[in-house]
Amino acid sequence: MEERLKKQLEFALEIDKEKNIFRQTHLSGNGRRENDAEHAWHMAIMAYLLREYSNEEIDIAKVMLMCLIHDVVEIDAGDTYAYDEENLKTQKAREDAAKGRIYSLLPEDQKQELIALFDEFEAYETPEAKFARAMDNIQPLILNVSNEGGDWKEHAVTSKNVYGRQRKTALGSKILFQAADEMIQEQIKKGNLPE
Amino acid sequence: MEERLKKQLEFALEIDKEKNIFRQTHLSGNGRRENDAEHAWHMAIMAYLLREYSNEEIDIAKVMLMCLIHDVVEIDAGDTYAYDEENLKTQKAREDAAKGRIYSLLPEDQKQELIALFDEFEAYETPEAKFARAMDNIQPLILNVSNEGGDWKEHAVTSKNVYGRQRKTALGSKILFQAADEMIQEQIKKGNLPE
Repeated sequence: MEERLKKQLEFALEIDKEKNIFRQTHLSGNGRRENDAEHAWHMAIMAYLLREYSNEEIDIAKVMLMCLIHDVVEIDAGDTYAYDEENLKTQKAREDAAKGRIYSLLPEDQKQELIALFDEFEAYETPEAKFARAMDNIQPLILNVSNEGGDWKEHAVTSKNVYGRQRKTALGSKILFQAADEMIQEQIKKGNLPE
Repeated sequence: MEERLKKQLEFALEIDKEKNIFRQTHLSGNGRRENDAEHAWHMAIMAYLLREYSNEEIDIAKVMLMCLIHDVVEIDAGDTYAYDEENLKTQKAREDAAKGRIYSLLPEDQKQELIALFDEFEAYETPEAKFARAMDNIQPLILNVSNEGGDWKEHAVTSKNVYGRQRKTALGSKILFQAADEMIQEQIKKGNLPE
């Protein structure tokens, strides 16, 4: 087997570990906690199906790939909950170290390509990054809403926290932010999310 | 919220159930059984990284989407193990019923598009389907090899069974079939797979 293919398969095996990184979000039907691989899969499909709502024109293959790989760094860095102020402070340093190690398993050209894609997602600036980040916000929202806000209750999250995150969804899609807003307002009315 | 978006979000919520459909393959490190969503995520990333080995030119966005959605039908139809002769006989009927119900949650245009994509994957004829199917074969192989053939041992699978499946990998990628062949031969030598 060629060295290049060997490296690609080693990387493919390494990222299997992402299936063991669990998030705070629970599956619908009040299921178990979701892992990063499942979350990324869900985001990528949603990106494709909802691409018509992007504020700007997007390269959908790039968005899907961004969704699929954006949490690979968490194999080393662990998941950082969106409302965990303490861990958010160290998130970047932990993830930077992780991306160096994990993507270095790939041939150099693919290492550079995937690191650039991850950095683009993190920077939240390009149309593709903004839409992928909108998926990163909307995907756990629909699960949590289906569970009557169970994740918010568990972590004493308020609507202010939720809006702090979801408002950025509008950078990628004003229409999807409106939909998120409707869902959040309904949850507040139901008493599932304190104001 | 517009009816169209409502339908798209309903479908997005429905496919969350794919995370509860478990396969016979175990995660690396002799982990738990893998579920369909994780498998699809893994296949899509591998498709992107290994696309240079496709026998024919492929539309990689289409291949990735095919990988991501190919097991949605198993929400209703359940997983059919690749070496389970009895269940393989009823697989098509079960999956056809499932695809009608599940994809009908989507707006009509997206329903038609995704059903066509699923049917294309199943038909194993286009360059994209052949490469996506190669991923469907290679992805569990690398996990199983990393676990010293644990899944084969559990189900008394022989190298004849494995080659019956993996030979079709060559339809999508001769190079990846050669790599699979090397891995299988090594497992036979190690005594992890009876001839």
